[in-house]
Amino acid sequence: MSVAKERDLRQYCVDVAAAARDASAKLATVTGQQKIDWLYRSAEALRRNIDNLIASNQQDLDAASGYNLTDAAIDRLRLTPRRIESVAVALQEIASLDDPIGEIIDSTVRPNGLEIHKVRVPLGVVFFIYESRPNVTADAAALCVKSGNAVILRGGKEASHSNRALANILIEALSNTGLPADAIQLVNTPDREAVGHFLELDEYISVTIPRGGESLIRRVAAEARMPVIKHYDGNCHVYVDRDADLDMAAEVTINSKCQRYGVCNAAESLLVHADVATEFLPAVGETLKQQGVEIRGDARVRELIAGASEARDADFKAEFLAPIISVNVVASLEEAIRHINHFGSHHTDAILTSNLDAARRFAVAVDSAAVMINTSTRFNDGGQFGLGAEIGISTDKLHARGPCGLKELTSYKYVCYGQGQIRT
Amino acid sequence: MSVAKERDLRQYCVDVAAAARDASAKLATVTGQQKIDWLYRSAEALRRNIDNLIASNQQDLDAASGYNLTDAAIDRLRLTPRRIESVAVALQEIASLDDPIGEIIDSTVRPNGLEIHKVRVPLGVVFFIYESRPNVTADAAALCVKSGNAVILRGGKEASHSNRALANILIEALSNTGLPADAIQLVNTPDREAVGHFLELDEYISVTIPRGGESLIRRVAAEARMPVIKHYDGNCHVYVDRDADLDMAAEVTINSKCQRYGVCNAAESLLVHADVATEFLPAVGETLKQQGVEIRGDARVRELIAGASEARDADFKAEFLAPIISVNVVASLEEAIRHINHFGSHHTDAILTSNLDAARRFAVAVDSAAVMINTSTRFNDGGQFGLGAEIGISTDKLHARGPCGLKELTSYKYVCYGQGQIRT
Repeated sequence: MSVAKERDLRQYCVDVAAAARDASAKLATVTGQQKIDWLYRSAEALRRNIDNLIASNQQDLDAASGYNLTDAAIDRLRLTPRRIESVAVALQEIASLDDPIGEIIDSTVRPNGLEIHKVRVPLGVVFFIYESRPNVTADAAALCVKSGNAVILRGGKEASHSNRALANILIEALSNTGLPADAIQLVNTPDREAVGHFLELDEYISVTIPRGGESLIRRVAAEARMPVIKHYDGNCHVYVDRDADLDMAAEVTINSKCQRYGVCNAAESLLVHADVATEFLPAVGETLKQQGVEIRGDARVRELIAGASEARDADFKAEFLAPIISVNVVASLEEAIRHINHFGSHHTDAILTSNLDAARRFAVAVDSAAVMINTSTRFNDGGQFGLGAEIGISTDKLHARGPCGLKELTSYKYVCYGQGQIRT
Repeated sequence: MSVAKERDLRQYCVDVAAAARDASAKLATVTGQQKIDWLYRSAEALRRNIDNLIASNQQDLDAASGYNLTDAAIDRLRLTPRRIESVAVALQEIASLDDPIGEIIDSTVRPNGLEIHKVRVPLGVVFFIYESRPNVTADAAALCVKSGNAVILRGGKEASHSNRALANILIEALSNTGLPADAIQLVNTPDREAVGHFLELDEYISVTIPRGGESLIRRVAAEARMPVIKHYDGNCHVYVDRDADLDMAAEVTINSKCQRYGVCNAAESLLVHADVATEFLPAVGETLKQQGVEIRGDARVRELIAGASEARDADFKAEFLAPIISVNVVASLEEAIRHINHFGSHHTDAILTSNLDAARRFAVAVDSAAVMINTSTRFNDGGQFGLGAEIGISTDKLHARGPCGLKELTSYKYVCYGQGQIRT
């Protein structure tokens, strides 16, 4: 890229970010009803524009072969009338969630009479980077605006026409509802450098949320000058304790692994206490194999499950997102905890036990966003937790951990009411 | 630095960070009483070691001239028996605060019977970078450990002997209480590169908190791979509305500006509604001048206050930390809000008004960590807000905003209790 072009691109990014900040200042003071109206209006506009949306989507589908997309990726990219309807329904569901803005989170009256309120406010500007599925464009924009934030959307190039068509509908609905149009901006420029420019603009952008492969997320974490909410994928464990109800343990193991393979809260690793391995593993191994799951285990596992192959350290670290599971027999609860904290990704880990001490010890010592006791890892999800929709599941500890819904897209400010108090 | 030495330094930093992480895992599961015992034991040990501490401090004082420290900086560096006693008392006060760890912040029972608890947990490892006053060593270590975190302390070189002596006492008390000694590590190496190495170690370090000049904070924000809680300084405003009680406004203005000059929550700028400028400014200008405060104002201000000099944009952007104030007459509440959001640092801004709409509009539209209504900016402080001690005042919006006490040094995890629930 020439120096002049590089300068133009940087200026474009600054202009987008500055416009987003101005829009966010306006958005911070609108009523909840305006945001609800916008969401309903957007849902209706999506339904009215099904043909346009499908035509734009077809342009992406026609170009898909040029991006070497897998069949699964092409399927995720596809918009159908049914999928567009479910995007519209999702917007209506977000409309129905409680508005987080203005909530008094905490409040205290000090001895000198000062009333201190901790009030929920928007973050400001969200820079959201994502890949493939076009419905994410609408979900993310809806969550950001409902929580009072302006959003800069940077979607994948393979969905650029679909994203543009969806964003235009949402943006037009903003104007029609009296909300600032720049509250949603889609950055479709093909230049990879654009992301780097935005990551420097901490003066305008409050937070960057990257959703995609690990290399994208590592790049963003290294380059961003503003806070980042990260969504590394999940290497989730099921640990079957000595005191587990083994029928329940088998059911939860199979659900955690097999209910859906390609998701971050699916189990990738099974740990079994040595005292119950002989009773538990042969049967559960059989069921896993019937489901088509490949088993990689330690020596004891290979004795107990016919056809299991050898697990290496890399298998215990892996997020397979596929019908593969690593299995290890452990001598104790403590060994299970150490294994999970060492090999895991601090996402979601389950224990099966009837022993109160073991459950409490596991809950305290396993350093993960969610610890499941006698239930499936698949429940770590904004919808399942009752948060409504989510923009992702954070494996960070700062600001937001676990499912990120509307509240996780907010900050707070202190508003102090006095009657002339001064400090002495 | 030679390549070999550079490699050694990096390995040293990795070792420190890894030891901190191991210590944090242990610290996450200790009882609140152990942390209380440690704080009391540390306070006693400080009192027993006054002579040693003063001797170590003298080494720093002897070296101070080599660092070109101002007299004020040398005074801040000095430890006296009285100052050591107040450090000990501060540790006892932190001991008496509620233990934040294990608190159930929120909890819900889902329709399928799943009980979801959101439980407060430590962040993990805090990398704390600070300058000059040695008492900060003890305060920061106490806040971090009380909130269940291991801390890596990087103090200023001009206080290195004092910091070492203080840290050794706290570390010895850790061992004597059965807590992991590596929960507190002081990095006193003179190599500036050490900070850069730590800022890359996001695998071990949960958060970096820089406290010092703006260049340090900008460097940390640009280089850190982990989240940063930033403490930019404060350009705080007092806005006197058309409907203000002018006697109250004068008192709050003087308190906000003059109660202490060198602190981040002191007012640096005064905005006055045009309708009350003639009545308000001459008298308050006189009082400010009597206090020795230099006034820099717009044309209208210079008409109303004899001896006021001309204010430029740089004066409205400045954090003086000195007896200087910028003063501007504004045509409306909206102009005041725009001025504050444009020139301010999003720290603390006050309005004086008896008008409910104006107060509410100011509270919503001013994008600052704290908005004071009819009270002094000087109250934005962890102690004054009732949070207990603070590790700083955040001007960020993510994770923590405003005073950062014990709770702001924590995260949460979800602990879900089931009875075998699976996802369908």
